Amino acid sequence: MISKLINEIVKKDAPIVVGLDPMLSYIPDFVKADAFAKYGETLEGAAAAVWEYNKAIVDAVYDLIPCVKPQIAMYEQFGIPGLLVYKNTVDYCKKKGLVVIGDVKRGDIGSTSAAYATAHLGTITVGANTFAPFDEDFATVNPYLGSDGVKPFIDVCNANDRGIFLLVKTSNPSSGEFQDRLIDGCPLYERVAEKVCEWGSLSMDGDYSNVGCVVGATYPEMGRVLREVMPKAYILVPGYGAQGGTADGLKPYFNEDGLGAIVNSSRGIIAAYKKEPYLSRFGEKGFADAARQAVIDMKNDINGAVFGR
Amino acid sequence: MISKLINEIVKKDAPIVVGLDPMLSYIPDFVKADAFAKYGETLEGAAAAVWEYNKAIVDAVYDLIPCVKPQIAMYEQFGIPGLLVYKNTVDYCKKKGLVVIGDVKRGDIGSTSAAYATAHLGTITVGANTFAPFDEDFATVNPYLGSDGVKPFIDVCNANDRGIFLLVKTSNPSSGEFQDRLIDGCPLYERVAEKVCEWGSLSMDGDYSNVGCVVGATYPEMGRVLREVMPKAYILVPGYGAQGGTADGLKPYFNEDGLGAIVNSSRGIIAAYKKEPYLSRFGEKGFADAARQAVIDMKNDINGAVFGR
Repeated sequence: MISKLINEIVKKDAPIVVGLDPMLSYIPDFVKADAFAKYGETLEGAAAAVWEYNKAIVDAVYDLIPCVKPQIAMYEQFGIPGLLVYKNTVDYCKKKGLVVIGDVKRGDIGSTSAAYATAHLGTITVGANTFAPFDEDFATVNPYLGSDGVKPFIDVCNANDRGIFLLVKTSNPSSGEFQDRLIDGCPLYERVAEKVCEWGSLSMDGDYSNVGCVVGATYPEMGRVLREVMPKAYILVPGYGAQGGTADGLKPYFNEDGLGAIVNSSRGIIAAYKKEPYLSRFGEKGFADAARQAVIDMKNDINGAVFGR
Repeated sequence: MISKLINEIVKKDAPIVVGLDPMLSYIPDFVKADAFAKYGETLEGAAAAVWEYNKAIVDAVYDLIPCVKPQIAMYEQFGIPGLLVYKNTVDYCKKKGLVVIGDVKRGDIGSTSAAYATAHLGTITVGANTFAPFDEDFATVNPYLGSDGVKPFIDVCNANDRGIFLLVKTSNPSSGEFQDRLIDGCPLYERVAEKVCEWGSLSMDGDYSNVGCVVGATYPEMGRVLREVMPKAYILVPGYGAQGGTADGLKPYFNEDGLGAIVNSSRGIIAAYKKEPYLSRFGEKGFADAARQAVIDMKNDINGAVFGR
């Protein structure tokens, strides 16, 4: 699956992923009003607003980007109706030719990890029939439980040509509380990175592995080290834009082949219309066009700073 | 919320929790046949089988136990129909007077962690209305992302009288890969335990905190140390029975007040009918009665070994 993602990144000349993380506060009032008129001020109404919002944004940007990353928490907060829209969003994006990273940060052990892997990347057999429950292309996975938690995901990846991104160094300010602590002179995140290499060797797909990792854009010096520790792992980079990561700081996340990293932006794209310069130009009614312009700007920003083009 | 759980544990003289982790292979064929006849060999059919199975087990054991712990992965693997049964199971157990621990092992940062907390322990406002999406009493949480990931859960716990159990030392064989690595002479799990104490002080409820922890029954020596490091944290103990943890090994997890730990068994209870001595006595048709007997046996085993009664 990583080779498919790479093909799309190269084809669209855009090492970027749009995070579909819809807060109700991001959704324009007129979209919410329409949805509430149809379904009431209910979880169904909120979910319907998310769905219309997502569709409009995906329609506006899908030709520019290789990949989207819906954050399942933002759907789970609307209960079952929200999760139904998560599923519909995954399906809609795949129909539009997009690679879908389910940002689910699941992680458990043994048969439980296998059940999560089945839910998001695999298939389940019921009697004579087989179903793909959520059917994302990639999922994010938490490594704290070790190999027992990760290998069931890799088995499902290998059976279904899918991939995972393991949390190594997250973008948040407190990520260092555990991740930066030194173990035999090396921070925990490097110890996790060493295991990412080991696990990654179990699912190679061309020059890269289906086992990638997450390293925040907010820590470029650590990104430089981790790029060297995990040469075959694609790095999913959150934290660009709204969280403070800059395009200049992204260079160390890429390999010399110009590949190896894909940079996420969520609210910087999907809520672009709420801030200048997009607000004046597009307004609330133009939220999807604002998202498109923000994607173009992000692509130019990163391609300029990282590749000088 | 921890004081409510403690009251129920004392009232029922049972420091135990039944894990409602339904694999399709655990469910008796006649239950599946009924469900498939109504809904087909579909995700809906599988979910209907899980629902009937859960209801029968809960009906058979609710008067003996304080608490259940549905593992959401086992429902998520059946997609939306599975998650609907998860929600219905939570509601049904609460109606029966049981405390519900959602074993969701969620964990993210900032607004995303807040969204998970809202989904499982909080409420969300849509227009003029407020909803509790999944409405568990406790949730399990992964600590790898640090305070930014945990504090949004604590805020929601404090606003809604709920609690969390943070993963400290998990029961699986490979849990040591990261959790046992030494940081300044102490294993990572102790560093996490220190933070559990700090976070726990933000949500005290009587003698204990609404911030509990998970320490596997398979590591009693570590349990002894962690009990001392976190005197105010209730310990949720997985790994008893099927995973190899013994009742004799559970003593160190309890405080001198006889409180401080609650021991989980999942397949040892819900699939008891598949193994001797329950198979001969109850058979497949008696799966719920077998679960009841297995609860009685577990309670006697633990109360005998830990408290000598």
